[in-house]
Amino acid sequence: MNKGKLFVISGPSGAGKSTVITRLLKQLSNVYFSISATTREPRRGERDGVDYHFIGKEEFEKLIKDDQLLEYAEFVGNYYGTPAIPVDEKLNAGYDVILDIETKGAEQVMSKRPDAISIFIFPGSFEILEQRLRLRGTDSEEKILGRLAQAKIECQKAEMYDYIIINDRFETACDEVTSIITAEKCKTAGRLHLLSE
Amino acid sequence: MNKGKLFVISGPSGAGKSTVITRLLKQLSNVYFSISATTREPRRGERDGVDYHFIGKEEFEKLIKDDQLLEYAEFVGNYYGTPAIPVDEKLNAGYDVILDIETKGAEQVMSKRPDAISIFIFPGSFEILEQRLRLRGTDSEEKILGRLAQAKIECQKAEMYDYIIINDRFETACDEVTSIITAEKCKTAGRLHLLSE
Repeated sequence: MNKGKLFVISGPSGAGKSTVITRLLKQLSNVYFSISATTREPRRGERDGVDYHFIGKEEFEKLIKDDQLLEYAEFVGNYYGTPAIPVDEKLNAGYDVILDIETKGAEQVMSKRPDAISIFIFPGSFEILEQRLRLRGTDSEEKILGRLAQAKIECQKAEMYDYIIINDRFETACDEVTSIITAEKCKTAGRLHLLSE
Repeated sequence: MNKGKLFVISGPSGAGKSTVITRLLKQLSNVYFSISATTREPRRGERDGVDYHFIGKEEFEKLIKDDQLLEYAEFVGNYYGTPAIPVDEKLNAGYDVILDIETKGAEQVMSKRPDAISIFIFPGSFEILEQRLRLRGTDSEEKILGRLAQAKIECQKAEMYDYIIINDRFETACDEVTSIITAEKCKTAGRLHLLSE
């Protein structure tokens, strides 16, 4: 059996990554969506193993020390990261694994796993991004401007990715990401053995 | 505007290349199917510019001499080949171009156009290939055995291709080829300029 492939989906906050991924998971079989680990307290309604793996600070720091995280970061005193073991278990079992991570985490994964396939999702234009952030209604003006400035910095690193998706039409964006996953599985290296049967 | 991409679809005779391509052309817009040139006489029902570009031997030999063929071959005294100019005109106009050629021609194109995306279509197994060749009912036993031997040789070169399609289920094969074409157009090099707008 072939090993699965690791897909890293990233892009600026507000690009629509999680909406696209939710659709993908409905359309594709044999795909596992990686759940991050965090040391922060669960918020109301969040479930362990669904929204996050909620783990202790000592456990997280042991993962860091043992180099068992594909990526991690610290935000306001809490750790967030992707433990390698569950990802590798799924890959070895033949599942494709999708990571939804912000761009700094994506860079860490690309550096640790050069065979990961990376997809950068962009909202179409900075005007659209600004509109989306305002429509959310959750961020202050200052935070919106901060996110926009951040998005411009992130776009400068888009050339590190294998693919770019312009999410100005949701259906097209979903279709393109699905096509990338399908196409990557048709690459010659993973199929050559089928010809000798 | 982006230039189009050149797709070379090849594989053993009987793999189902042309059936898959006929379906693709119905599903995809902006795709141009390259028509070969030949010096042989049109057969009954064949139309110039549809089945082949029927050209004279002198004209063909001038194309060879001027290096204006992406690939060519001689069979029983007639030339068959792919003139470069119409392909490049379509690529420059932003169309993707699909070539359906036998494996030796495909190798010539890959060597002349390293940026071409190559897809090898295989019928699933040699048993299936044998069945298909017999079902056609057009070939003698000797010719069938010759085609099977030829297919085995061709499969040994499949590693030269970017993608392998196992055409044991027609719908899946078509979906995969469509996905490859869609995914290749999402590659970062062709889209980076969209992020600076």
